[in-house]
Order: sequence, then structure tokens, then C-alpha cells
Amino acid sequence: MSKILVLGAGLSSSDLIKYLLDHSKILGWTIRVGDISLEIARQKINNHPNAEAIQFDINNNQQLHEEVAWANAVISMLPAFMHPVVAQECVKQGKHMLTASYVSDTMKSLHEEARQKGIALLNELGVDPGIDHMSAMRIIDEIREKGGKLIGFISNTGGLIAPESDNNPWNYKFTWNPRNVVLAGQGVAQFLENGQYKYTPYHRLFSDVRKYKILNLGEFEMYPNRDSLKYREIYRIEDIKTIIRGTLRRSGYSKAWNVFVQLGMTDDTYKMANSEKLTKREFLNSFLPYHPTDSVEQKLKRIIPDTQDEGVFNKLKWLGLFENEPIGLPNASPAQLLQRIMEPKLALEPNDKDMIVMQHIFDYELAGNKHRKTSTMIIIGKDTVHTAMSITVGTPLAIATKMLLTGQIKERGVIVPTKPNLYNPILNELENYGVKFIEEEVILK
Amino acid sequence: MSKILVLGAGLSSSDLIKYLLDHSKILGWTIRVGDISLEIARQKINNHPNAEAIQFDINNNQQLHEEVAWANAVISMLPAFMHPVVAQECVKQGKHMLTASYVSDTMKSLHEEARQKGIALLNELGVDPGIDHMSAMRIIDEIREKGGKLIGFISNTGGLIAPESDNNPWNYKFTWNPRNVVLAGQGVAQFLENGQYKYTPYHRLFSDVRKYKILNLGEFEMYPNRDSLKYREIYRIEDIKTIIRGTLRRSGYSKAWNVFVQLGMTDDTYKMANSEKLTKREFLNSFLPYHPTDSVEQKLKRIIPDTQDEGVFNKLKWLGLFENEPIGLPNASPAQLLQRIMEPKLALEPNDKDMIVMQHIFDYELAGNKHRKTSTMIIIGKDTVHTAMSITVGTPLAIATKMLLTGQIKERGVIVPTKPNLYNPILNELENYGVKFIEEEVILK
Repeated sequence: MSKILVLGAGLSSSDLIKYLLDHSKILGWTIRVGDISLEIARQKINNHPNAEAIQFDINNNQQLHEEVAWANAVISMLPAFMHPVVAQECVKQGKHMLTASYVSDTMKSLHEEARQKGIALLNELGVDPGIDHMSAMRIIDEIREKGGKLIGFISNTGGLIAPESDNNPWNYKFTWNPRNVVLAGQGVAQFLENGQYKYTPYHRLFSDVRKYKILNLGEFEMYPNRDSLKYREIYRIEDIKTIIRGTLRRSGYSKAWNVFVQLGMTDDTYKMANSEKLTKREFLNSFLPYHPTDSVEQKLKRIIPDTQDEGVFNKLKWLGLFENEPIGLPNASPAQLLQRIMEPKLALEPNDKDMIVMQHIFDYELAGNKHRKTSTMIIIGKDTVHTAMSITVGTPLAIATKMLLTGQIKERGVIVPTKPNLYNPILNELENYGVKFIEEEVILK
Repeated sequence: MSKILVLGAGLSSSDLIKYLLDHSKILGWTIRVGDISLEIARQKINNHPNAEAIQFDINNNQQLHEEVAWANAVISMLPAFMHPVVAQECVKQGKHMLTASYVSDTMKSLHEEARQKGIALLNELGVDPGIDHMSAMRIIDEIREKGGKLIGFISNTGGLIAPESDNNPWNYKFTWNPRNVVLAGQGVAQFLENGQYKYTPYHRLFSDVRKYKILNLGEFEMYPNRDSLKYREIYRIEDIKTIIRGTLRRSGYSKAWNVFVQLGMTDDTYKMANSEKLTKREFLNSFLPYHPTDSVEQKLKRIIPDTQDEGVFNKLKWLGLFENEPIGLPNASPAQLLQRIMEPKLALEPNDKDMIVMQHIFDYELAGNKHRKTSTMIIIGKDTVHTAMSITVGTPLAIATKMLLTGQIKERGVIVPTKPNLYNPILNELENYGVKFIEEEVILK
């Protein structure tokens, strides 16, 4: 009898919890699901005999202590910044923990203590990070094993709207945390291209996108993520010539998004004066120069020439940016106000399906030839509960939990799934859930 | 007999120390000048009988304690981030302290304790902040007293090179801390214009400059400083319609500087890979897209169209940016590398003179008329020791020290010179040192 504690029962937890419930009888599991909303936790377990829903508050130390004491393994689906609190309690009590998030510095610092106590802290077991690592490492290791030399690796992922639900001019909807979408790309993008280190500042990121045609889905555009360079070490490909990890959007998105970036509307570092009184039009005008007679539209087209493009202008107009309608958000940053404007427009509708697209492009040399191998995953959500995001974030985490509790994972301490003993069984089982990669390979030149 | 401790004997301290020495006999002062370099401290006191030079290290707590114990008043000319350490020691020992820097949060927090101990912490007594406050407040108070209503206030200052020493294509040299020049403007510029709040992000700051003709000096351009809004409270002009504080440069500077900003070369938040090996040309190329055949020049002109302007291109070329000459700075940020490239090119030469330009523009209503009053200060340095910077930073601080030690300042706690009892005597005496404002006034329309 293993006891599994799941903390956080939001949208991304649906398929994780479903997998755990479905395997609970045969594996003898008891599952306790905690969420700040008891109602949401209840919905997720749906009266399953092996599960229990509880109201859980991460700020209640006593409750955290007791729940961790009860469990054999703890899966944290809480916002990433809350993981360290859970991890410290797990290590203290000698309990395994699993997350779909990046290894934080706090997490890393717990490695030795966790190892000594014989527990595993498994991380980066979602889709990105998660499936991206596993699927890339499998091919990187394959190329290495057959004697190939990897010279280039480009890996792009996007959380998008499925073609059948794609009915707005942005060709985008919020399929995950809107705040992260608004702040995406801030900082400098660092990557390596044909042996040259390249640095793209945030304010040039969206004007410097690359185009990709992906399978039968048409054209996408990619902007590089913040730090691609560190993956040389993580993937053990230190001598690679090109490494870029990027985010995918539908073509046309970036040129319009860049208007917000250029104007400074995605800034989250300060609060705007009188933000509670601002209308959408006044919000926009706050970033345009004062002019005694010119309209907001005239000034915008002069200051940001890209808005003379009808496609760009219509995307902004569709959001209602030129309307004198109050936003109604007190003490807010530009980014918060922009999010508030976009959220109702770009929200998923009841019958919408989301889509996750991931594509790796490997360039390698073997026996005098240059090969390009492309590996592509397209996942379309089943509905608004079993979204592509929920399937791809929750299922690998659930599979890893099963492996851990059935003794298939022997390592202890902080672990990420970049080795075959983890990625092979997880990727193999993921195929049963529709998570497959389509591979293509050509010889270049 | 008063004992004055001056900490920091760098370039900006020359005229401060000269004033103190010149007044030491008649006022019975003993002056001790401490610097990390004993040699520099010695040069500044030049064997004066009432002065003593010491080697001073701010990290030596024992020494700080002893030197503060010796003094009646401490003037900190150290880098601003070191002031809090000195201030805390002064408050602990009940000694007056003076700086030319902005009131920091730490400084502010010492107000009550300083008041209770009967000591003054005088700040913002340099040129900017300092003379800007005093000269602006004098006119703001004058307008208020004669029944006028201030509706607009624009205040611009630049530390520049004197026309007779202006012999490079940037029309600029480093007359103060080059690091601050490279990082200038980062963040968002917030100001109020004709009743509208306006926000300009850093990456648009230098493409949105305003032009000013100033007296007989020709044309300047201005970019707004980070936070103009807070001066409404400081200057007691809460209901003003326009308030902008800006930095002045010679015309043409900003368009070229903007190339660095657009490329991300002024970023100080990360270190560049292999920075010790980079040549100037490679440094530039790091911010340009990879291309198999195009030259750095071709890519630059494509990515930043402003560089197709010969004036802009020549400014970059003059700095040597296209040369394959190593920069030689290990583990450096883009901003640090850019500074290293610019420093030898934009350094003051032995016979150069610097110049400080400050201009306030006041718009006010009086008896049904709209008035515009302009008040302009132009200071040209005497030589590379008695620079305009040293005269304008050090002299007001020295005058305030005299006032404090002769009982003319009764307030205690944290003080800035925005009230007549401080600004009038300081501004009046500054005229003896050539620090004068030229006023012009017109009725608008």
C-alpha cells in the first residue's frame, strides 16, 4: 500500500490524477488530493474509492507537516515558487517528491541530504521541461551510439490552440498561465549558432523570429528562449556548434506582440499612476508621445511603423485597445493591465481544444555525410479538462511516480530525466497516451 | 576649532577641498582628507598647514570609528553606495554628515535618530542633485509668492565637454563616471505632459529625444530621466500639468547611442561567453544575426537601419567597433565591454575643459497671461583639476558645511536644500564662484 499526496488540483493536474486513480487498484495506492479549493480537489477525484480530497493551504505549516507525514510520495503541482517549501518538508521527513518544474537553486541544494536519507527528488517531468529533455536525449544518445557527431540542435515548443478552435486574429489563446505569456521572453536570449555566441535583447526578440513549416500544420514562427547555452551541459553536448531552444507561435503573432514590447506595455517593474481609472485607449496612449491634436491611432502608426500593417493593426483593434472602456485594475503594472485586457479575449471557450507542438532538429555528421533528423510531437487536447497541456504535463509525472513506487528508479537525490533508465520507459509508456514523435531524416547537400 | 573629515579625494573633491582649505584659517578649521590612495589625498591638500592627508579604507571599521570620533562634521565624497556605512557611524557617534548624493532609503531611515541626537544629515548638495533643486525651488517659490500658478516645469542637465575641447564625432567625452554614462537611462522614464502620464521604455528613450537651443551654445537634445513624477512632491508642485527632468547631450549623440541600446550592448545583467577573447568586431557581431556570408557592416545596416546614416556609422567606426582588435576584459558584461571600448576614445585629454549645462523652463499663469521663464546655467571647467563638475559638485557642499558649522542651519535630521534658508545663501555665495543662472522670460501667445 503506497500513499500518494498530490498538492494542487488545477487544470494541469487532470491527467496526472486520472492516471493515478486508474492505477490505484492494481498497485494498491491511496491518493490524497489537496487544493486551496476543496471543490476543485473533489471534482478531480470524482468519488473514486481509493482517493480523498482535502482543502490544502501551503501557508499552513502544521497541515503541510501532517500531510507529508501521511504520504510515501508527494507530487507538487503548486506554482513553482512554492516547491521549495514542500521539498524541504519532504527531505526533513524522508519522503519522495516529484514536480514538473525546473530544478530551482533550493531544490539543487537539497541533493546531498536527500541522497543520504534515501529519497528521490524528481523534477522536470512535465512537457517543457520534461518530454523535451527525454525525447531529445533519446535521439542524442542514439546518434552518439551509432558514431555520429552532433553539430546542431534546435528545439522548439509551443502551447497553442488547436486548428479546429483557432478562430481569432492572433491565432492564439491562453492555454496556460496568461501572466507567463505576457512576461515571456524578458531578459536576453543567449544561444550559439554555427560556432558564434549570439545575444538577442528582449526588445529585438519578436522582430527577429524564424519561420518553420511543421508537418501538415502550416507555418509557425519561433523566438529563442532565454538561455539555450546551459543545455550543452545538461544534454552532454558541450562541443556543439549550434544550440537554440525556442518558443513557437503561429505566423503573424510576433509582429503584433512586438508592438506591446516596443511600447513598454509588458513591463512588470512599476505601477502606473491612476491605473484603476485607465481606459484601454488611455493605457495605450500612456506609451505614446503627447500630441495636441493627433489621435492615438495616428501616433501609434507613426511611432511603431509595423502598425501600418493591417494585420497587425487589426489584432490590436480586436483586443479593444482603441476603445474608451475602463480596464478597472488598481495599482497595476503595464503587464498586469495588458493581461487584464487580453484575458477575456484570448480565453479558452467551452468547446475549445488546445495543442502542444514540439519539434527537435538534429544536425549530425556520420560517415562523411551531414544528416538532419527532425522529431515532431503534436498533441491536441481532448476537451477543456483533458487538455494537451494536462496530458503532457501530468502523464510523464504520473509514470515516473509509478516507476519510483514500484522500485524501478534506484537513484536518490535530485534527478532529472536525461538518462535512458528514466526516459526510455516513460517515453514508451507515453505512446499509449498518444504522446508520440514523428521522425524524418534527410542527408543535407 | 571645528574638525572636518572629508572621505574621498577623487576628481569631484578638488573644489570642495580647496574651499575648505581657503576658509580654514579664518574659521579655525582643521581638515583631514582620507582616500584609499594616500597620494591622491596628499595632492589635494598640497601641504596646507590646517590639513592632513590620510590613507582611508571604508572597509576598515576601526578606522572609520576613529576618524568619525575625531571629526565634528563628515563629508562623504565616496561612491554613493558607501554613504550608508558612514551615515550609520555618524549617527551612532552624533556627528554631522554631508553628501552630494540622493537621499537613500538607509539615509531616510536615520532621520529620527539623527534629529534626536541633534545632528544634521545634509544631502543632495552637489550639482544634480543639488544646484538643480536650489535654483528650481528659488524660482518656483518666487512664482508662487507673486501669485502665479506653475503649470509646467522642464529641467535638463548635462555633463558635457566644453566647445573649445569638443573634437570628436560624438561631441562628448567622459567628464564623470563612465560606467554611469554607459548605464544611463535604464528602466522606464516616467513623466507628466499636459496632464497625461507618459512612460518611455529604455529601448525607445534615445529615439524619442527633444531638441533645445541653449543660449549661444547651439543645439542640444534631451532624453527624460527615470522618475520625474516624484519631484512634484519634493518641489511641492503636486498639481502641475507638465513635469519632465532630462539629460542633455549634443545633437546627434542619441541616434548613435541608440544603436548600442537597440543591439543590447549596454546590458549589465549577464556575462558574455569568452569575453576575454572577444575583439571589438566580434563583440559587435555577437549582437547581430548569424549569416554565412554577409559582413558585420552589412548585417548592422540591415538590422539597425539608422546605421545607414553616415553620421551614425562614422561615430561607431571612430570608436573602432569594426576592428579586429582584442578588448581584453575577462568575465565581462556587454556594458563593461562597451565601456572598455569607449573609455580610451572618450577620455578627457590634459588640456580639455568640461562643461555643465543646466536649464529650467517654467510655464506659469499670472493675471490671465501664460509666462515662460527660462533659467540657464553654463559652467566651463578651469582645467582638468578644477572641472565644472568639481566646482558645481563641491562648492555647494562646502558652503553648506560652512553654514552648518557656523550655526546658520538649525534643522536636524535628514535635510535636502529645497527651502529658502538653505538655497538662498548657497546660491548667492555660488555666484562668487561663477555659478550663475541667466534668466529669460516671455509671455506665450
